[in-house]
Amino acid sequence: MHLFKTSEKYFQVHPWLVVEEGFDPQKQRLAESIFSLANEFMCVRGYFEEGYSGDHLLGSYFSQLYETLEVKYPQIFKGFVTEVAAMITAVDWLYTRITLDGETLDLATAQFSDFKRTLDLRDATLTREFIWTTGSQKQLKLTFIRFVDLQMTALGCQRIVLEPLNFSGEVHICSGLDFNTIYELAAGWDQTQGTGASKQQMAQTNFWTCERQQCVDDLHAIQARTQTSGCHLFSSFRVAADQPITPRLIEREKFIGIELTLNVQAQHATVFEKMAVNHWEQTADADQVWTNGLQLAQQLAEVTFDQALAEHRRGWTDFWNRMDIEIEGDPELQQGVRYSLFVLYVNYHGESERRNVLCKLGGEVYSGVNFWDTEIYCHRMYMFLDPKIARKLLMYRYHYLPKAIQNAQRVDLEGARYPFSTITGLEDSGTWQHVDLEIHQNEAIYYAIWHYAHVCQDKEFLYHEGIEMLLQMCRCMASWGGWSPKNGDFGFYGVMGPDEFHMMVNHNCYTNYLGKKMFNYTLEVLAEMQRDAPELYQQAVTKVQLRPEEPREWQRMAEKMRILKDEETGIYEQHDGYFDLPHIEVKDIPMSQIPIYKHWAYIRIFRYNMLKQPDFLNLPYFFSQDFTMEEKRQNYEFYEARTSHESSLSPSLHAILAAELGKLAEAYNFLAYAARLDLDNYNRNTEQGIHSSSAAGVWASMVSGFGGLRTDAETLIFNPTIPEQWNAYRFKIFYRGALLAVHVTHDKALFKVVEGHSVTVSIYGQSHRITPEGLEVQLLQ
Amino acid sequence: MHLFKTSEKYFQVHPWLVVEEGFDPQKQRLAESIFSLANEFMCVRGYFEEGYSGDHLLGSYFSQLYETLEVKYPQIFKGFVTEVAAMITAVDWLYTRITLDGETLDLATAQFSDFKRTLDLRDATLTREFIWTTGSQKQLKLTFIRFVDLQMTALGCQRIVLEPLNFSGEVHICSGLDFNTIYELAAGWDQTQGTGASKQQMAQTNFWTCERQQCVDDLHAIQARTQTSGCHLFSSFRVAADQPITPRLIEREKFIGIELTLNVQAQHATVFEKMAVNHWEQTADADQVWTNGLQLAQQLAEVTFDQALAEHRRGWTDFWNRMDIEIEGDPELQQGVRYSLFVLYVNYHGESERRNVLCKLGGEVYSGVNFWDTEIYCHRMYMFLDPKIARKLLMYRYHYLPKAIQNAQRVDLEGARYPFSTITGLEDSGTWQHVDLEIHQNEAIYYAIWHYAHVCQDKEFLYHEGIEMLLQMCRCMASWGGWSPKNGDFGFYGVMGPDEFHMMVNHNCYTNYLGKKMFNYTLEVLAEMQRDAPELYQQAVTKVQLRPEEPREWQRMAEKMRILKDEETGIYEQHDGYFDLPHIEVKDIPMSQIPIYKHWAYIRIFRYNMLKQPDFLNLPYFFSQDFTMEEKRQNYEFYEARTSHESSLSPSLHAILAAELGKLAEAYNFLAYAARLDLDNYNRNTEQGIHSSSAAGVWASMVSGFGGLRTDAETLIFNPTIPEQWNAYRFKIFYRGALLAVHVTHDKALFKVVEGHSVTVSIYGQSHRITPEGLEVQLLQ
Repeated sequence: MHLFKTSEKYFQVHPWLVVEEGFDPQKQRLAESIFSLANEFMCVRGYFEEGYSGDHLLGSYFSQLYETLEVKYPQIFKGFVTEVAAMITAVDWLYTRITLDGETLDLATAQFSDFKRTLDLRDATLTREFIWTTGSQKQLKLTFIRFVDLQMTALGCQRIVLEPLNFSGEVHICSGLDFNTIYELAAGWDQTQGTGASKQQMAQTNFWTCERQQCVDDLHAIQARTQTSGCHLFSSFRVAADQPITPRLIEREKFIGIELTLNVQAQHATVFEKMAVNHWEQTADADQVWTNGLQLAQQLAEVTFDQALAEHRRGWTDFWNRMDIEIEGDPELQQGVRYSLFVLYVNYHGESERRNVLCKLGGEVYSGVNFWDTEIYCHRMYMFLDPKIARKLLMYRYHYLPKAIQNAQRVDLEGARYPFSTITGLEDSGTWQHVDLEIHQNEAIYYAIWHYAHVCQDKEFLYHEGIEMLLQMCRCMASWGGWSPKNGDFGFYGVMGPDEFHMMVNHNCYTNYLGKKMFNYTLEVLAEMQRDAPELYQQAVTKVQLRPEEPREWQRMAEKMRILKDEETGIYEQHDGYFDLPHIEVKDIPMSQIPIYKHWAYIRIFRYNMLKQPDFLNLPYFFSQDFTMEEKRQNYEFYEARTSHESSLSPSLHAILAAELGKLAEAYNFLAYAARLDLDNYNRNTEQGIHSSSAAGVWASMVSGFGGLRTDAETLIFNPTIPEQWNAYRFKIFYRGALLAVHVTHDKALFKVVEGHSVTVSIYGQSHRITPEGLEVQLLQ
Repeated sequence: MHLFKTSEKYFQVHPWLVVEEGFDPQKQRLAESIFSLANEFMCVRGYFEEGYSGDHLLGSYFSQLYETLEVKYPQIFKGFVTEVAAMITAVDWLYTRITLDGETLDLATAQFSDFKRTLDLRDATLTREFIWTTGSQKQLKLTFIRFVDLQMTALGCQRIVLEPLNFSGEVHICSGLDFNTIYELAAGWDQTQGTGASKQQMAQTNFWTCERQQCVDDLHAIQARTQTSGCHLFSSFRVAADQPITPRLIEREKFIGIELTLNVQAQHATVFEKMAVNHWEQTADADQVWTNGLQLAQQLAEVTFDQALAEHRRGWTDFWNRMDIEIEGDPELQQGVRYSLFVLYVNYHGESERRNVLCKLGGEVYSGVNFWDTEIYCHRMYMFLDPKIARKLLMYRYHYLPKAIQNAQRVDLEGARYPFSTITGLEDSGTWQHVDLEIHQNEAIYYAIWHYAHVCQDKEFLYHEGIEMLLQMCRCMASWGGWSPKNGDFGFYGVMGPDEFHMMVNHNCYTNYLGKKMFNYTLEVLAEMQRDAPELYQQAVTKVQLRPEEPREWQRMAEKMRILKDEETGIYEQHDGYFDLPHIEVKDIPMSQIPIYKHWAYIRIFRYNMLKQPDFLNLPYFFSQDFTMEEKRQNYEFYEARTSHESSLSPSLHAILAAELGKLAEAYNFLAYAARLDLDNYNRNTEQGIHSSSAAGVWASMVSGFGGLRTDAETLIFNPTIPEQWNAYRFKIFYRGALLAVHVTHDKALFKVVEGHSVTVSIYGQSHRITPEGLEVQLLQ
């Protein structure tokens, strides 16, 4: 293996905390990303709420809240996407200014010491403390604590503790809600990752128009709308302190706030709290948003910081009780794995089926969209946490089925084509060579439907929403595919596989294979419904207006699907002609050319057999029973040697397969990289946000990798292994009503139901009933 | 054959004239294109110089004079072109306003009759006449005559004849030079063909800043510069009339002009003339342009309209004496063929080796760039008109060799990569999937070098500039190419062939074949020089720093070049996997889906075996001796059936091969289409400009098609045929010092040297010495 990546150690290692001690302004953007907090509804980067004039990215986002941007091409062709959507930065509800002796705190210019920023993974709180020494030599110790409430997701909570060390006197505070925020990508900050906003829009960095602001009693509210997409965002706040306060209203453009004076006593901690309630909904009705926002704010008016925190902590404790993965003897990986789980859960926890997992958390890059990553990387973790969440993610897609049909028509296809990169349900990226040629998104959704229905046995979903999506997606794939006049077989021509290093190829093995599976599964479900649920069958085929010949055609397409394989070597060919591509010895590429995307001309990448990620290798993981161990080994070794791992999704897949093949040291290295991808800034782009899908891959590397979980048989399969670096590890999964705990040491694996009834699983090929008493098996080496 | 195209008859048929009688405002843009005049240096569309408020495109262009525009992508990757160049519309030097009784003439609103616009192909003059009836019922017959001087190319000449029919009195004229011209593409007029100007630039339509204006005696001069590229354009004019005049100076923003009053007499023609001198040169020195422009204007000050016209006519008479193609018995094709020859010669006639053939004449679309079309389509016609012109076109490329080296580096290549679409010598288009993946431009230049050196025997050029280009271009191709790990052979991966309906393919037969030819030819020239001109050899290899291993590598690449062919059917495979592509019955595509580019989603086009143009079929034309007649027939029939002819270049190639294969009716139909492509507006886009390269293809369809000229043997080869529609046809070519006239009737072909000494050619496989006495051969049927 050759990962070409080097770590950049900055944060302290701790099993449950991520700590920055001392402040390096160069790392501010990195730390802001790492210290992002989110609760599915909203997200804030770890920026300094008191204002900071140094380089930073004040990021405050609301999932699915987007602005529409026009997209430009050098030359536009039929079917090109003409406008895209991007999650823009929204209200700075943490806005605070602190003034002492006429000096307003700004860590870019102020004198300060004992700086420490701590993210507590246990309860998703961010604490920052330091001692500020003013020009007049007054020393004020400040502690900022914030969290975004896990249950009452509209609620953002901020506490500031002010403790004068060498004086008593007045501190002036200004606190408010600020819509004067900057969407940096629009200013062309990083064009290589941009959304393609046109120049006119580029010149502009704020897309908010204030609609209304109001102060009722101690509740301050403001509402603004985005310019083109017309999203309305309501924001309100209240403040409290442990001393009487008399706030004065401040109104500025796109801003509402208050000013007040605190009397602080030497050696005594004064507490100031701000409770913000944010609200938005998908409607063009500004009044409705305002009314509902206000109502919500009033409902939450009595909730104190401490009450909210206590409830929030309970939620997080529940989560960790169900999902924590413990590793003994490896603090770095322990921290990395927990950080990964944290990242997933803050990103999405199933509150709403109109939201999804943002593929990058806490940044502007990737524009707040979701990708196939949700279904291929994230969905399984949620499924084993709580099937209801997995169902919600599928329902998210179901709600956008009409949009997917529209998206198919855009490129002359029938049925439903789910977009590759989306907020709005339509294709929200203009990079046509990727988003339009990669057609495996439908297949990823098929996979998640099958996976969920198979593991969680939810026929209700399958026979209603699932079948409708499957039928429309099959119809789409059939309209893309073509018949070879040479061999008479079928396949998908002119596609890009998930390995994005080959642009327009025929018979991409991953795409063809999943297409075949999807046709077959859909036909199976149809047959099953015809037999077991004839009314629902009739309802489904009527709704999609299934033509009688379609199932026959799909059957023939599945039968005749070309799956390229060299029978002599056992290697499946990634696409037609892949074996013929000039060879590059990936391990010999000098570090100076890494990452490839930045150092190689784009068009050069596509001429060789080097992979970004080996898409074929997903198949022996998804469908473990379809491949022999020998095939897995042959293909893993062949493709791994040709992989640049330029995709952050690649290492975790390798960890999983390497573990299965007994290459434990290799599996460990891949996992080690994935688990600390952002904490150690391996890709040097964590400043842009956190790689959520890689984090989901970390869960899979643990559970499917070392735990050996496979899901494509009748019951779950486990083949636990353990790398030599660890003493033991533990994880839990929720499976058919049981919370199953697995504890693996170097000599044995203990399986135990810790909640719910007993379940049957297969361990090392033997079927076992796991009960609350537990079952111990010897570890196979 | 299936051309899917229908003609739109508008202009009158005449052997030497193109006539519009009566005015249809709907056809104004079309007629403006058709009535474009040019002289290589400048070009004006046939717009109404007196001002016209109806829909039209006031186009005044100067070859190579461009503005730089930023180009935007949805997502930018390494190597993408970030700014492009476009020939913007420049000074309206024909600017005139005519006022009678306070009414200013505007054919969009005025009452008029007897409208006639006539392009005389014999002398490239445009005449327009009509009778204007004012609101006060005065009738004024106006005749406008214009030409752009063929020899004194700075000179634009305008004559206006005013003949009152029913009154005597005063007519007011304003005449000037106007830089307030609009570049429509910048306003997004036709986005599907645009240059990708960014939104900010889109809002702007004029890119000129006035630098200086001055009136010295009767010479009025103005100079303006483009905003970003910094081109300086000097323009000046003088007026004259057949009565004493007293012009008054008019100065406005970006405008200089005069006003004067003419006393006109009933039934008497008054003549008013304007002689404009325009000048620009590639320099950032505004003063230099001004000084040289002024000097030139003063030099040309004494030239009258009639003197200039007489000299201009002599030049055109010379051209037609050498290049006319006569067809007996087919007035429509006669006109179309002559119009095509006219289009080429106005476009470029070899005045400067810093100019080239504009691929579209008299319009904004294609931005005034040149393509591979120059070398593949146009170069041969110039070569047989005058080898010096052909040499100049090659020297144009030679001058840009340093830019081609820079252009190679942009996409990680060695040596020189000539741009696909260029004004500046660099790549001036951002449509990366075409311009960066189509690598056959170098090969087109190799082909033209070889063709020219072979036919014209110019070792001087070959051993100096030719070899240097060849070496740098081979180096580039070698750095793109790759070795198959499967077969051990060589080829070009990840390319787009000239058939632009397959985007990123391997081993495109056209590209590989020409690459092999280019390597071999370069090595031959090297060997020849080493033997015959060792000093020049040393000079060349030193200059390009040829590495000793390079020729050996190129030799091996040529030897091992993969040329895909099905030995059973004799069909060369257009690219690896082409035979495997799903079949489309091109002839069954409904008319409503034509043109494909407008009706099919872009990405859909690439999944089938349908071709835009069959690039392979160029090879049996270029290298006729390399293929048997049977191979030609097999491949023609195979590929023609799969061709959509969506490229305007396609029909003429088919005419040439069809004629060779004895499919004379088919050849005739292809020629008929190509010859009247613009006159009959077959593609419904002539309003955007004239298809120059198709016009060059018309020459080839006549001379290489029915004339059967082939150039790849030791001497020229002729295999004359004649379609049944004609009585006879005649053409001339200049070949090794002799002007050779060919006259073909249904029973015989007469070959005769009409200028110069005798030459040897092959006719129907027999070698013949052609003398001034001539030689008659029986026509083979």
